[in-house]
Amino acid sequence: MNLIVKDVDIATGDIQIVLLNQKDANELDLHHMDRLIVKKDGKKTTAVLDIAESKKAVPPGHIGLFEEVLDALNAKHNDKVEIEIADKPESVAYIKRKLDGEKLGSREIKAIVQDIVENKLTDIELTSFVIAGYTRGMNRKEIAELTKAMAETGEQLKFDRKPIVDVHSIGGVPGNRTTMIIVPILVAAGCTVPKTSSRAITSPAGTADTMEVLCPVSLPVDKLKKIIREVGGFIIWGGAVNLAPADDRIIRVEHPLSIDAEGQMLASIMAKKASVGATHLLMEIPVGKGTKVKNHKQAKHLALHFGELGHFLNIKIKTIITDGGQPVGRGIGPLLEAKDVICTLKSHEHAPQDLVEKSLQMSGMLLEMVGRAGKGKGYQMAYKILHTGAAYGAMCRIVEAQGGKMPAPETLKPAKKTYTLHAEKTGKIKNIENEMIAKVARLAGAPVDPDSGIYLHQHCNCFVKKGEPVLTIYARSSRKLKYAVDALKKMGGVIMK
Amino acid sequence: MNLIVKDVDIATGDIQIVLLNQKDANELDLHHMDRLIVKKDGKKTTAVLDIAESKKAVPPGHIGLFEEVLDALNAKHNDKVEIEIADKPESVAYIKRKLDGEKLGSREIKAIVQDIVENKLTDIELTSFVIAGYTRGMNRKEIAELTKAMAETGEQLKFDRKPIVDVHSIGGVPGNRTTMIIVPILVAAGCTVPKTSSRAITSPAGTADTMEVLCPVSLPVDKLKKIIREVGGFIIWGGAVNLAPADDRIIRVEHPLSIDAEGQMLASIMAKKASVGATHLLMEIPVGKGTKVKNHKQAKHLALHFGELGHFLNIKIKTIITDGGQPVGRGIGPLLEAKDVICTLKSHEHAPQDLVEKSLQMSGMLLEMVGRAGKGKGYQMAYKILHTGAAYGAMCRIVEAQGGKMPAPETLKPAKKTYTLHAEKTGKIKNIENEMIAKVARLAGAPVDPDSGIYLHQHCNCFVKKGEPVLTIYARSSRKLKYAVDALKKMGGVIMK
Repeated sequence: MNLIVKDVDIATGDIQIVLLNQKDANELDLHHMDRLIVKKDGKKTTAVLDIAESKKAVPPGHIGLFEEVLDALNAKHNDKVEIEIADKPESVAYIKRKLDGEKLGSREIKAIVQDIVENKLTDIELTSFVIAGYTRGMNRKEIAELTKAMAETGEQLKFDRKPIVDVHSIGGVPGNRTTMIIVPILVAAGCTVPKTSSRAITSPAGTADTMEVLCPVSLPVDKLKKIIREVGGFIIWGGAVNLAPADDRIIRVEHPLSIDAEGQMLASIMAKKASVGATHLLMEIPVGKGTKVKNHKQAKHLALHFGELGHFLNIKIKTIITDGGQPVGRGIGPLLEAKDVICTLKSHEHAPQDLVEKSLQMSGMLLEMVGRAGKGKGYQMAYKILHTGAAYGAMCRIVEAQGGKMPAPETLKPAKKTYTLHAEKTGKIKNIENEMIAKVARLAGAPVDPDSGIYLHQHCNCFVKKGEPVLTIYARSSRKLKYAVDALKKMGGVIMK
Repeated sequence: MNLIVKDVDIATGDIQIVLLNQKDANELDLHHMDRLIVKKDGKKTTAVLDIAESKKAVPPGHIGLFEEVLDALNAKHNDKVEIEIADKPESVAYIKRKLDGEKLGSREIKAIVQDIVENKLTDIELTSFVIAGYTRGMNRKEIAELTKAMAETGEQLKFDRKPIVDVHSIGGVPGNRTTMIIVPILVAAGCTVPKTSSRAITSPAGTADTMEVLCPVSLPVDKLKKIIREVGGFIIWGGAVNLAPADDRIIRVEHPLSIDAEGQMLASIMAKKASVGATHLLMEIPVGKGTKVKNHKQAKHLALHFGELGHFLNIKIKTIITDGGQPVGRGIGPLLEAKDVICTLKSHEHAPQDLVEKSLQMSGMLLEMVGRAGKGKGYQMAYKILHTGAAYGAMCRIVEAQGGKMPAPETLKPAKKTYTLHAEKTGKIKNIENEMIAKVARLAGAPVDPDSGIYLHQHCNCFVKKGEPVLTIYARSSRKLKYAVDALKKMGGVIMK
């Protein structure tokens, strides 16, 4: 059938969509979400059908093309295209099997992940896969195969060295920037640390956002290889190198229902470690109110699964369960967190002691894991590397290799509009909730405005006098500051004992 | 935040969607599928957010509104609107509970169904509900509550009479138009039969499509009540009276993955029976290749569940398991099936005997169920009603009451373009597959062109001589005829033993 193109001037950002009028769809016996091959001048692409009921949207004889389809066919308004009915991708049949309770094998999982990466599945199909994985569960073999498929359908960095060290923290704790201390300590100790990090999704800053205050974090693969050879480590944004890209689309489906399917979460984390060829990994699992992992039992269960998956992938894993009950450090937001990191690396008097301690402990564990330090000597070695300035030196080399220049901490100025919350009475601070701090800092502008966020003058259980500052919010505009202050008040602020 | 409206000139036909540029979404900390309240001049509506990555689709400071949103706000291109963040509907939390394996109660199921009917759920949320019902299963109580909620969120016809008789066939068998014989037989016997039927979804004709050849099938509720008082029965399209409307949206999600979640199927059928106040119901479950129910075991299991659900809803149910291995009657497509029905009601020599027998048997069962005939005497009574012309008389009254006039069968002329398949050798016909017949008849134009379809000169196991006609395809255009003939050939045609 030949149809006239209507440019509907919309992009989905992922799957290709075309619109037909109900009348044409009936005549061709086509239904919502069927697939069509659309052809023009030797080019063709496969798109999913949506049906327009009104003539206004798409009249009979016409076909509405979303931007992705227009691009794929190099088509424009009023062009003629031909359509043909396409089969569903094979992976849809595999998803159906999973729905029906069957276990999926390597080939089936690979096909599903491939089609996710290539945007061939509709929201309904992808949701079905994610929900089936959640309600039916996935066994060890399936999780391992999913991990491999996710790694293999993305970029894979190969470095000709061993050991390759990695560190990961399950999210949920604002200000938890240990990675930016641990990586330079390990690099200073001679380890290879190709660290890929994420940007914030629902938090005020990811490690990638914070690192970006100091230097570029999106670098081409050949440049990364050069940095490993010359410096021994980097801290970049994983998204720029397209590691395990299936992950993003799965998260997009999980987000609206706040699902965190364990199998998919394990696979998504470990796929990224496999993609950089990690041989040793320290996994931090913070436990506390507002963190992803709710209690110690769940954390131990998760640690076990990480261990098993590591075994399958040939990655040696240790897990550390930490107290995630309140934010780490003082700064929340990219610039303020970067300032904490630099103060720590310079052993500055303003270095937040909780961040220092946690980073040293974790660095020590990794130094022991890879055999750089003897058993029980890791912490001491990390302490020495940090306080002699060797870690700071390594960080300067990393930052410069990535194309930046290490700033003096006092030159990092937060945004100008401020609001300071003062203690309403004398006493101890009962709690500073992760979720509240994250929400308020985001509304103030973090991570989009990197100089916005929160500075915590106090932590939980600190004794404060009435009228002393508890926290300061920084924002670029009065409007954003108001959003943040309103949310702080609405969410109850900081509670005193 | 104030934004300028862009009319994106697309309708979804269901959920309200707005588009924001990525930049604005980041600033407001909004994600794909979040909900927004959109306000203009005192009007407001809640819509789901989609994010546009390019300026071309929606530039920063603008908001793309789909037609449903424009209508709800009475807004047009370049108007100003205000937005606010809306909470997710409560039902999303209930769907999450079902995902997590909890059983849902009456209030929760009602809230979910209400939001489905009001188009408040996104594809991801609705798919999650449907898939959770499929993979986790639903217990008897949940299915019963779902049935009630589906009935209560739609129109409910109340007739002040008893018994109210209904008949239903699980689909999959082309030409199975027994309903149009059974209803007039029962009406002639003095029963009240408010029959609501469906249009074809994937078949060449539903009962509503076939009845529409004779008279209108979309009638207002007050007219229906009048017909029941004066004639005792009708056969209408259920879609026109909005019975259990949640069903359509659930089916839209099940279709792409060919899921037929048992609980939802039971609920969707029984909700419609509850909506018309049925007291007695005969349920036909055809079993055979290409039918919905694959084998006797499954049919018996289903019969048990229908019985239980009927008990909860206070509907007396009998089930008949029939041979669904091939089409019923000779005509396939609305007009050709209507012709079979009239021939049967007139005891015409061309009446297809399989259709006659099946209709008599089922009518007999219903007459016994409601006590119009003694035990074992139902068939005989139905036979008499049919062959004395009493059923034909009742059908004429029904057709006239609905605003039509009963035609003589010879005046029903099928479409002009024809293709006849002849036997390629002498022998017995091995099989006439339901799925092939349905597909070919649909491609010929049925049910959209009601006079198109297939006439079966032969059934399975009939003996034919080489060159004798096996079936004739009727279509309005050479193009549609070609589609149909191509599909017939591609699907292997009719196989001879």
